[in-house]
Amino acid sequence: MKQMVTAKDVAKLAGVSQSSVSRVYFEGAKVSAKTRAKVLAAAEELGYHPNEFARSLITNRTKIIGLVMKGVQNPFYPQVLKQFTTAFKKQGYSVLFVHTQNEELQREDVETLLNYNVAGVIITDATMSLTVAEDFRANRIPLVFFNRKLNTGGFYSVCCNNLNASREVARYLIGKGAKDFAYISGNSDTSTSREREEGFVEILEQSGIPYRIYQSDYTYEGGYQTALNMLEGGHLPAAVFAGNDIMALGVIDAFRKKSIHVPGDTKVIGFDNIDMAGWPGYGLTTWEQPIEKMVEETIHYLMDEIEEYKGFGRALEIEGRLVERETV
Amino acid sequence: MKQMVTAKDVAKLAGVSQSSVSRVYFEGAKVSAKTRAKVLAAAEELGYHPNEFARSLITNRTKIIGLVMKGVQNPFYPQVLKQFTTAFKKQGYSVLFVHTQNEELQREDVETLLNYNVAGVIITDATMSLTVAEDFRANRIPLVFFNRKLNTGGFYSVCCNNLNASREVARYLIGKGAKDFAYISGNSDTSTSREREEGFVEILEQSGIPYRIYQSDYTYEGGYQTALNMLEGGHLPAAVFAGNDIMALGVIDAFRKKSIHVPGDTKVIGFDNIDMAGWPGYGLTTWEQPIEKMVEETIHYLMDEIEEYKGFGRALEIEGRLVERETV
Repeated sequence: MKQMVTAKDVAKLAGVSQSSVSRVYFEGAKVSAKTRAKVLAAAEELGYHPNEFARSLITNRTKIIGLVMKGVQNPFYPQVLKQFTTAFKKQGYSVLFVHTQNEELQREDVETLLNYNVAGVIITDATMSLTVAEDFRANRIPLVFFNRKLNTGGFYSVCCNNLNASREVARYLIGKGAKDFAYISGNSDTSTSREREEGFVEILEQSGIPYRIYQSDYTYEGGYQTALNMLEGGHLPAAVFAGNDIMALGVIDAFRKKSIHVPGDTKVIGFDNIDMAGWPGYGLTTWEQPIEKMVEETIHYLMDEIEEYKGFGRALEIEGRLVERETV
Repeated sequence: MKQMVTAKDVAKLAGVSQSSVSRVYFEGAKVSAKTRAKVLAAAEELGYHPNEFARSLITNRTKIIGLVMKGVQNPFYPQVLKQFTTAFKKQGYSVLFVHTQNEELQREDVETLLNYNVAGVIITDATMSLTVAEDFRANRIPLVFFNRKLNTGGFYSVCCNNLNASREVARYLIGKGAKDFAYISGNSDTSTSREREEGFVEILEQSGIPYRIYQSDYTYEGGYQTALNMLEGGHLPAAVFAGNDIMALGVIDAFRKKSIHVPGDTKVIGFDNIDMAGWPGYGLTTWEQPIEKMVEETIHYLMDEIEEYKGFGRALEIEGRLVERETV
């Protein structure tokens, strides 16, 4: 039965003290070049892996980022997960994936993140109570809301500029000559859906253009069903703005089923620019979220706060861009 | 500046020794009901979180499972990730997500998993060299290949029974009267694609039915382009078996673009039964992978091996089922 190789074994083979072995592996510790060489040679020979848990007890820091995600059904989020994991790897950080069933982060998930003493936390498509957010603050764990804003201030969030985006979407559709509109909302308790509705409606009101709001849920099935309900209600607007791409794909399929031609009979525009929006089967015109830039800013903030915790809060908004394809 | 609450603080408030606090939180340690109650009350009052790293140093075990994944573009894998994370949470385990860019697990990823002393590893759509697999074995870390088989024996893998599945697919299409066939393969170095081809071809050969093999890559774009190439080459088979669903969706869209009616002009069948296969825009007939059962068996194996490491190897294959929709 082979035992795990320990720092003690390495120290013995290298002919140095155990604390010298520690100093080689723990950041910021001073150690002579000669000792370092001896330790690394011995570690190589024995196949020693410095234990991250031991390191964390000494430095009181881990190299783990907790990433909380709900909706893996929406391809936007796996894409975000991939980009974060790839970018964090370059910084020497690993991602602890926390899947939450509920819109709000549950106590057990918070306990997990606190127990692992994560270096930072990213909340994507979920919210948390203020009490829970304060728990992280009390433990000096930096926190970013990604693609979500908290109503209360004092926290850091990174979003696409949803207000400006939906204003631009409205202006674009008006410019294409559409005379009446529908907005299909996502879950009403999300900042993204509220802001996309707000900016869109603002421009339509200013222009005196009629519109209707349909409540949906950011899923393909929701978009599909909403479009069918719209038609059953005898309403075919000149243009439909769906709160995200995956709903827009459902809308297109519902129209296709009812032999309504897009963009001939009605125009459809989405939000996100997921890979599927570019599939030839859809060719969805949409608003692209600047994921790369959003990921970059999130990591930048977390690294700064990990370096020196300030608990700095700000709602950062980044401009996206229109991607024209075939549905408008 | 608030400091992290330690076991020492809890011990002080509870009026017990620090080792009593440890015993309350570390599995299998004996402690009186009275002491346990005192410690838990003090921990509650102070907001103490037992540190998993400290625990792991004492028990030499963590509650982290490393999950290695490459292709988040294929919705099959986010679905798998969600199911694993949800099921592990019930067992008190968390998932360290490792995204690998390459088909083969890289050395740096292996180091990460070893450094965190993960309790177990699941490799989904990637492979690893025998040397790397032996590294995990040497560290007594149980390993499961999920939806992939290694060529070498002695390792545990959990797959759908791909041979039986593709034989059934061939028999089903023959039963529908199709007279010539195409198989669109995934990446040729994957066991899944090889076995799906093998079972399919076996039945066609037995029945004396002509077929062609087209090499692709398990992506939507690959399926789309392969179907276009097929048509440009003047070949419209009576039925197309795509090695996975996401390629089948690409095939359907390419046929749609060229005004070829499915299933009227040609039939299309996929493999996986991802959510999108059921979308009304596609209605894809496919072979369902028994993900829930596959996840359950994987977790069962890992928990057994974590309980008592045996390094037990076996290629477990689970039967899937045909899901009939509108494309055949």
